[in-house]
Amino acid sequence: MAVGLSTLPRLFPVPGIRLATTSAGIRKRNRKDLVIIECATNTRVAGVFTNNKLRAAPVVLAHRHLAGHSPRACIINTGFANAATGQKGLEDALACCQALAEQMHCQTEEILPFSTGVIGERLPVDRIINAIPDCLAKLDADGWKDAAHGIMTTDTVAKAFSVKTSINGKGLTITGIVKGSGMIRPDMATMLAFVATDAKLSAEVITSALQEVTRTSFNRITVDGDTSTNDACLLFATGQGELVIENDSEDSYQLFVKELGKVFLDLAQAIIRDAEGITKFITIRVTNGLSESDCLEVAYTVAHSPLVKTAFFASDPNWGRILAAVGRAPVKDIDIDSVSVYLDDVCIARSGAVADDYSEAAGKNVMSRDEITIRIDLGTGQSQATVWTSDLSHDYVTINAEYRT
Amino acid sequence: MAVGLSTLPRLFPVPGIRLATTSAGIRKRNRKDLVIIECATNTRVAGVFTNNKLRAAPVVLAHRHLAGHSPRACIINTGFANAATGQKGLEDALACCQALAEQMHCQTEEILPFSTGVIGERLPVDRIINAIPDCLAKLDADGWKDAAHGIMTTDTVAKAFSVKTSINGKGLTITGIVKGSGMIRPDMATMLAFVATDAKLSAEVITSALQEVTRTSFNRITVDGDTSTNDACLLFATGQGELVIENDSEDSYQLFVKELGKVFLDLAQAIIRDAEGITKFITIRVTNGLSESDCLEVAYTVAHSPLVKTAFFASDPNWGRILAAVGRAPVKDIDIDSVSVYLDDVCIARSGAVADDYSEAAGKNVMSRDEITIRIDLGTGQSQATVWTSDLSHDYVTINAEYRT
Repeated sequence: MAVGLSTLPRLFPVPGIRLATTSAGIRKRNRKDLVIIECATNTRVAGVFTNNKLRAAPVVLAHRHLAGHSPRACIINTGFANAATGQKGLEDALACCQALAEQMHCQTEEILPFSTGVIGERLPVDRIINAIPDCLAKLDADGWKDAAHGIMTTDTVAKAFSVKTSINGKGLTITGIVKGSGMIRPDMATMLAFVATDAKLSAEVITSALQEVTRTSFNRITVDGDTSTNDACLLFATGQGELVIENDSEDSYQLFVKELGKVFLDLAQAIIRDAEGITKFITIRVTNGLSESDCLEVAYTVAHSPLVKTAFFASDPNWGRILAAVGRAPVKDIDIDSVSVYLDDVCIARSGAVADDYSEAAGKNVMSRDEITIRIDLGTGQSQATVWTSDLSHDYVTINAEYRT
Repeated sequence: MAVGLSTLPRLFPVPGIRLATTSAGIRKRNRKDLVIIECATNTRVAGVFTNNKLRAAPVVLAHRHLAGHSPRACIINTGFANAATGQKGLEDALACCQALAEQMHCQTEEILPFSTGVIGERLPVDRIINAIPDCLAKLDADGWKDAAHGIMTTDTVAKAFSVKTSINGKGLTITGIVKGSGMIRPDMATMLAFVATDAKLSAEVITSALQEVTRTSFNRITVDGDTSTNDACLLFATGQGELVIENDSEDSYQLFVKELGKVFLDLAQAIIRDAEGITKFITIRVTNGLSESDCLEVAYTVAHSPLVKTAFFASDPNWGRILAAVGRAPVKDIDIDSVSVYLDDVCIARSGAVADDYSEAAGKNVMSRDEITIRIDLGTGQSQATVWTSDLSHDYVTINAEYRT
């Protein structure tokens, strides 16, 4: 059960973007498994891709196509990841791009392919190609909601976010969808995300804005430490709205990044809120470290500790496991005697040992909540970092033990 | 259920060592929870201790005592780890040492304390001190088996190993016990181990032999990546047998290390065979890497992957998860196109993609076994490394969600 996610919010259309979703029967029947996102000509697109050295065929191809061409559409399938499929996998992904390009009367290189699902099995290319005409017929500016459903794998709910606002008197719309629930570890953007805005952005601006907001959203979440082979995050700027940003020194740039950051952070947190088997949404905030990277190392060590994660699943304030994880974090200059740990507002450890004023009842009270912040004060510097993660439950094991059945 | 562990083997007494075990009611009634190991005067003792920066009070004290004195005894309790207990924890551990020293008519600094159990709670010192006389009365050269039971926490079976052999015509006995089942990650020797030999070893020899055998045994196992706060491994050389080794250039040194290594490897593997919730004993052998550390990084990344571990629990040859873990290992020079992966004798991936001759049936056949070797050939160098790990099951979650109840 997802934590703190209810029905989808209102999703504002982004002028220049149309989406379509259909059931191609890729791995299971009667399941929305194929999505096409079409963007108007002159849309500027930037992407970030997985850093896993095992890059899925569609990631290789999307990266290549994006480098040399202005995209006209994305074709996204679930069911199979088309990863670890070698040369044949590349040919399969290319065949899907070719088929869509023919019907859209554009070049193959103007199509970006994305896949998500089981690793190591071939794509059923015929089924995908056969479903393209039906899918294209459904293209609709209001297709965001269906597309959010169409890219789901082990996700239990569709995830999307949208803002409509203005910056310096210029209207601005940003809408995005995301999928991801397991194999989630930040090493770019561990999932598929498609975010569009009607702003007109220069190449410099779209690239730096995407990097800036990814760093503190998708690159700050983890479910299980497993980086996917198929991660990708695409940002489309159609330029059909009022806002125009030419370079990142304009004052509207920071305001735009703030709005874009809201969308990215909501989408990133939505992945954790729908993490496989989640019962608790956990924010880990490490403060007063010597560097941001030290803080991140500590935060991820705690976030990946199976012992910490199972204690949260049990609502057991077994805080010693948190402190033990801090103690093994690969950071040279931790002085455990300077470390304090809080669960929400309850100080559980001070100077590396149990706090004098800590009571088990106070700890239990916090642990009964659905959303909990672990704050770790390293007491040695002025840097900080925040990551978000989930607990480790029986359902996580069940979901991942039965994934291919 | 432990994998491949049956009843304890015959445990040969080591002249100069006596052990006693009793129930002190430390955390639960009627449970063997206090062990004393006495060694004869002139026994040489070497130890390795956890690298977790959160060192439990007994570890701090044992390390300090060992540095300046020849130990006469160890006092080991389960139930509480006496970790993250600050100055009071040190006083508690010292009080236990003092009480035992008084009754043994030796100095407090000649006692080494060890604790294992829940982190962050105080030791019930009175109960421990009250139980010392009864425990001392039981000291027995044949006390190894009881002691193996007395140091267990979440362990499901007692773990011990013993060899009686001769080197260059000189008789040699080595006997050891170990506890550990969860919070197991190699950063020295993630558990408690006490191994004794009747050989007479110089200070140089006992130290280098201990380091040499620890490196390829206790430092090559992982259950959950969580390094304990209380790890310690002690090696006693009583010198009451026939074998004498003065320096590590003697040819008997390598033969001795080989025998000692057998005991350490058996004990280390026994921890994994009894890992929390284990259903499969997994050997991960990484070959043909550029360096041993590269091979180890790859092996641990695979060993810690929750997705790999749950696939093994499900007996699902979802080998894509193995390759995806290799792809995200923190090693610069991996060329995924050179990587091959084998499950036992079945080649599942070659050149970074599914092997042409792989069949799901062959994969399923291997995965149905209790003991499986994952061999990862990096194809770039000549180094190798092996680690041992367990799968991730519902029982692991249950055990760690209910640990303090």
